Amino acid sequence: MRRAIPALLIILFTSQAVAQEFSGLILTENGIERIQANRGEAPLFERSLETIKHQVDAEIENGFDVPVPKDLAGGYTHEKHKSNFFMMEKAGVLFAITDDEKYAQYILDMLIEYAEMYSTIDRHPAERSYARGKFFWQCLNDANWLVYTSQAYSYIYNWIDNETKDYLNTNLFRPYAEFLSIETPQFFNRIHNHSTWGNAAVGMIGLVMGDEELVNWALYGLDQEVPGDIVKDNDGGFIQMQGQKEAGFLAQIDHAFSPDGYYTEGPYYQRYAMYPFLIFANALANKQPEVGILEYRDGLLIKAVSALVNQTNSVGEFFPINDAQKRMSLGSRELVNAVSMAYHYGDQNSSLLSIIEGQGRVPINDAGFSAALAIEDSMATPNFKTSVELSDGANGDEGAIGILRSSVKSNDITLMLKYAKHGMGHGHFDRLSFLLYHGADEVFQDYGSARWVNIEHKDGGGYLTENNTWAKQTIAHNTVVIDGTTQFEQDVQTAEDNPGTAYLFEVEDQTVQVISAKELSAYPGVEMQRTMAMIALPDIENEVILDLYRIENEQPATYELPFYNGGHFMKSNFEFETYNNLEVMGENFGYQHLWKEALGNTSGEGSQVTWFNGTHFYTLSSATQENDAMIFGRIGANDPDFNLRRDPVLIHRREGTSSTLFANTIEIHGSYNPADEIPINSASSISSIEVIHSERKYSAVQITLANSKEYVFCISNQNADKQKSHSIELEETELKWNGPFTLQEL
Amino acid sequence: MRRAIPALLIILFTSQAVAQEFSGLILTENGIERIQANRGEAPLFERSLETIKHQVDAEIENGFDVPVPKDLAGGYTHEKHKSNFFMMEKAGVLFAITDDEKYAQYILDMLIEYAEMYSTIDRHPAERSYARGKFFWQCLNDANWLVYTSQAYSYIYNWIDNETKDYLNTNLFRPYAEFLSIETPQFFNRIHNHSTWGNAAVGMIGLVMGDEELVNWALYGLDQEVPGDIVKDNDGGFIQMQGQKEAGFLAQIDHAFSPDGYYTEGPYYQRYAMYPFLIFANALANKQPEVGILEYRDGLLIKAVSALVNQTNSVGEFFPINDAQKRMSLGSRELVNAVSMAYHYGDQNSSLLSIIEGQGRVPINDAGFSAALAIEDSMATPNFKTSVELSDGANGDEGAIGILRSSVKSNDITLMLKYAKHGMGHGHFDRLSFLLYHGADEVFQDYGSARWVNIEHKDGGGYLTENNTWAKQTIAHNTVVIDGTTQFEQDVQTAEDNPGTAYLFEVEDQTVQVISAKELSAYPGVEMQRTMAMIALPDIENEVILDLYRIENEQPATYELPFYNGGHFMKSNFEFETYNNLEVMGENFGYQHLWKEALGNTSGEGSQVTWFNGTHFYTLSSATQENDAMIFGRIGANDPDFNLRRDPVLIHRREGTSSTLFANTIEIHGSYNPADEIPINSASSISSIEVIHSERKYSAVQITLANSKEYVFCISNQNADKQKSHSIELEETELKWNGPFTLQEL
Repeated sequence: MRRAIPALLIILFTSQAVAQEFSGLILTENGIERIQANRGEAPLFERSLETIKHQVDAEIENGFDVPVPKDLAGGYTHEKHKSNFFMMEKAGVLFAITDDEKYAQYILDMLIEYAEMYSTIDRHPAERSYARGKFFWQCLNDANWLVYTSQAYSYIYNWIDNETKDYLNTNLFRPYAEFLSIETPQFFNRIHNHSTWGNAAVGMIGLVMGDEELVNWALYGLDQEVPGDIVKDNDGGFIQMQGQKEAGFLAQIDHAFSPDGYYTEGPYYQRYAMYPFLIFANALANKQPEVGILEYRDGLLIKAVSALVNQTNSVGEFFPINDAQKRMSLGSRELVNAVSMAYHYGDQNSSLLSIIEGQGRVPINDAGFSAALAIEDSMATPNFKTSVELSDGANGDEGAIGILRSSVKSNDITLMLKYAKHGMGHGHFDRLSFLLYHGADEVFQDYGSARWVNIEHKDGGGYLTENNTWAKQTIAHNTVVIDGTTQFEQDVQTAEDNPGTAYLFEVEDQTVQVISAKELSAYPGVEMQRTMAMIALPDIENEVILDLYRIENEQPATYELPFYNGGHFMKSNFEFETYNNLEVMGENFGYQHLWKEALGNTSGEGSQVTWFNGTHFYTLSSATQENDAMIFGRIGANDPDFNLRRDPVLIHRREGTSSTLFANTIEIHGSYNPADEIPINSASSISSIEVIHSERKYSAVQITLANSKEYVFCISNQNADKQKSHSIELEETELKWNGPFTLQEL
Repeated sequence: MRRAIPALLIILFTSQAVAQEFSGLILTENGIERIQANRGEAPLFERSLETIKHQVDAEIENGFDVPVPKDLAGGYTHEKHKSNFFMMEKAGVLFAITDDEKYAQYILDMLIEYAEMYSTIDRHPAERSYARGKFFWQCLNDANWLVYTSQAYSYIYNWIDNETKDYLNTNLFRPYAEFLSIETPQFFNRIHNHSTWGNAAVGMIGLVMGDEELVNWALYGLDQEVPGDIVKDNDGGFIQMQGQKEAGFLAQIDHAFSPDGYYTEGPYYQRYAMYPFLIFANALANKQPEVGILEYRDGLLIKAVSALVNQTNSVGEFFPINDAQKRMSLGSRELVNAVSMAYHYGDQNSSLLSIIEGQGRVPINDAGFSAALAIEDSMATPNFKTSVELSDGANGDEGAIGILRSSVKSNDITLMLKYAKHGMGHGHFDRLSFLLYHGADEVFQDYGSARWVNIEHKDGGGYLTENNTWAKQTIAHNTVVIDGTTQFEQDVQTAEDNPGTAYLFEVEDQTVQVISAKELSAYPGVEMQRTMAMIALPDIENEVILDLYRIENEQPATYELPFYNGGHFMKSNFEFETYNNLEVMGENFGYQHLWKEALGNTSGEGSQVTWFNGTHFYTLSSATQENDAMIFGRIGANDPDFNLRRDPVLIHRREGTSSTLFANTIEIHGSYNPADEIPINSASSISSIEVIHSERKYSAVQITLANSKEYVFCISNQNADKQKSHSIELEETELKWNGPFTLQEL
């Protein structure tokens, strides 16, 4: 396809242009020319442009409102100010691309109203934030406002007269930037996603106004102490990191990400933070290329987008680890910007284009246009995510998350094991917990956060009480709870200081992919190791998940391993008693939120439970010991405002032993659909899993299939050397192998 | 588009054909010629044909199995025999269309094995059915087998040699037809969907074999008494209808349907019964046109398809009233046959084509080909279902269901009020219950049946204990329960004999659509009337539902009106106390399955509760009296096998009054999506509903909007005459109007 060559046009343009430098932050002169010269060539871009044009035209038609700040999230004034900044940014790019002055006028009119109001208001009347804002109850939202509004302002900067410009700079933007920085250092000078927004906001308006001081504050932080009485934020996160010496945008990049691009708060917050990271970086790349921001730390920002894409199930929904609203996805506006930017400013990875196609829209900027053109030219290739381990910690040596994906029998099973750092104030006490998806279906789920983001009905959209009492507790996760208490005695700083330990991540052979990780500090005197494998066995429909959870304890204790199953109970191979009067399972550590619905006592012969989850069957087979209990629980007790979902759980309880091994297999099998009523493969293909060897050095299990085939899986728990030879004595034979683990048919 | 003209080809064909008449039951000679001459012209037909070809080819490749009958539904032998008859029918049409003899041979080989087995087996070993089958545990499934197999047999009938034909007729088909009829009259001679299958099976094999006796039994029933000790079937339905004089296929059409085509057991069973009704009718129309089956009773069978299409929400899922598996839909195989047949043999209604497009496949017969050709010719028009009342009873005078659909502000709100007959053995005690959908979302749901159809894990796929103890009980439905007991004292026959009473169905003005119906017998000495309106008010996003439930009782009683809300609780305007120990709400009538989660005491000032259901918000506003209670309940108590869904309910309880009026509004408003986190219109637009007049003759309520507008709605409860003038005295004014109801802004 032939297209106009932008380079030539730019020469023509610049020869006609006035001396004034182009003021736009994100769209470049070059980009605008390219877009204008190729209108219609990139339909996805055109549709995206049409959508925002439709929105902004309706807004201009209806008239805008700049109300006096009053409400919390979800309330009128909050939502209106939020809608205003989104709308101004859209009007800005429309003006840049169409040259239609009504868009510029709309922005200017609104900014004048904001400037007039600014001088008349103090901090927001709601007092719940550690850093109260102006237009919003918290500075975070004010920083959102300035990040978007500075873009809008940049596109009209050369269009407005100097007097008005001075008025806005002096009465709105400079004071507002000072308010967000030197007047609120507890917000601006942290290593935290809040501060990333703050840094970006102040830096971006600094770039627009040519205010180097602001840009420096943004990049390097303030040389200023946080007031001594402000220690924690509203989510319980510390204002100052231990040993924190630096602040500002570059320090955020240094501290917030691991070398793999993993963000310690997890993908929900990474998604949120990526917008200011990338949009300020984009502006810096355009306006101060000498900073080399996109190359900073080995191109970390682009790498972080790739890490984010990896932290999703097969339909692009983020793993809801730590504080996270479930079903946040690659379709979110932040990722719409991020993925196109990673494509354009990264290495034009064609598999990102299929994600962009899925998003169904592109950002209205140079990157979005590039991506849309490439899609129109059929350059998109499928985005098959592969198994990957993402390290945590600034140096990449503080634990990780491990992700296994099926590729042999199916391509939609996703497993994640978490052995990362805590994730600061938004972290959950969930070391060695796992998630398992089948497509978008949750086979075993993470609860996510107890919060309805922006929904006023639910405590103004903020974190609910149950986020602390339930969602952060260990029992709310698919990991072992010892003696009914939460890991690290619920202490965030201890958890932060003692990350999980990566032991093994071996995915080369796609038929037997293995993660193994250790947790040495969550419970005093206890070493835990969880090994999870995704195994493609002949004669079984899908990959089977093998789960070995070993506990080395100095003394006997009670162990409880919950499985937050999705779907409806089908059958179990053991008897259970249901209760006609429901009692809570405990007093604290989250147990106060669990109803005990039924109790099953297993023999030592293994338990098996099958569920149906809307489309497919799932079976959990567990090795059991005499007197192990299987407790059917349900979330929802002590929930005075109906804040919690009534989700079920199966808890495997083992009492009285010291060291022990929990061994499970998980099968995803068959299907059923209520419109044809024909069940396919509704029965498990595994008849049992047994522990045949368990001590400090080795764990071995035998899996027996319904077709009588037998397999043994054994892992060396203390030496992951690929070259090392091992052997153990089993009942009738000696098992020999090389490398950290083996799977053998008997 | 030009196509070969079948008529000419038929002449050529018949001139070459042997004297033998074409034996196929459903595909006609004409139809086959038309299909063969136009291969490729109807892509939907080609795709459907390819799909079954792929299935049958794989089956032939893998080899078939005819196991000795042993299992219940869901078990191997059951599912295998079921799969065999589906496969044979598919092979039959493939042979008819492709002339490839491998399909004929496959059918013949399998039939020989069936014939050999037939002589060696008695009734099925499982003894739970009132009419045990041969290949299956119940005759019903055997009749399914014969309905499909007789089609397969018909296509190879002229292909096989006479000796083999005699062998099959004598050793398999005639004895099997006798088994299903004269040897099991309690199955064959009823007015019931089971017998419809039985009649069709026997009639269709009679048509194939030219066995007029069988065809006569099928059409007119047996002159034979049912053994005296068999009174009820397994679902509690009576074998003999009161006063039943006739049996057979024509009597089924007379009795099972109302003149509107409503089937008294409800759409789930109608869907199931439509296949034998239509497929036998299709065969009769081809083979014995003199019966005039498609014109019978004013073209009732085709009308019944239209009634069925109407009994769905806006995405085509059937109302799950009576015993019904939820999410059964227009996409089911029975409807794939029915809708194409209604198109082809009915009046070529182009709006049926859009349903067929949605089904994504057509039946491989004349009707399917016609529909697919018309779709390819772009003749499909949208299927906008409108509000409609479907009468029940053979004469159309035994109650009805009323369906209101939104069309002014939205086109996806569907409300159904049930005031029909009981629905025989599959009926629920749900008189004056309603359902409300927003698209596919259930705003207020019907539980459906307690059953997992064909899922072996769940009691062999049959009805579960909880179907009687829970799903059929009145408290399981959105209708008033008096003194904690079920309607009609749970007596099916009494309920059957006393249908609901249609009072008013007025939908001409789409801005105020009204249904009103009465129930005079469900509770002794009590008259109940429910009026539901769908109202498009200015300034409100969607149509509002108004619900007035009036009870005239001779003595004080306790009234409970449940609302089975979908989704998550957002907020209420009253305080409530949740319990930290859950107790059941009662001992019987279904209350033993309800946990009491919370209790709210309302003042007389009205209650309001908002939920969020995955995509939208819903608000129920209720007029309250001092001391009314709002109980938050949840299904799931006394459920020893985890058979029940843990769905929530809000129960409005009023005690100590005799006659009373429950008045509610239901709003569907706003939206929220977790990937953009922007709540739209999350607050209710109605501030209250109050009862301003309530006595035997008139009910009047005032609705006050959040924007302070006030409306009054008044209905005449005893005179629905359109011409009649009414007036009532309100506090400050006199309200005057003509016709049964009025809505006025104050």
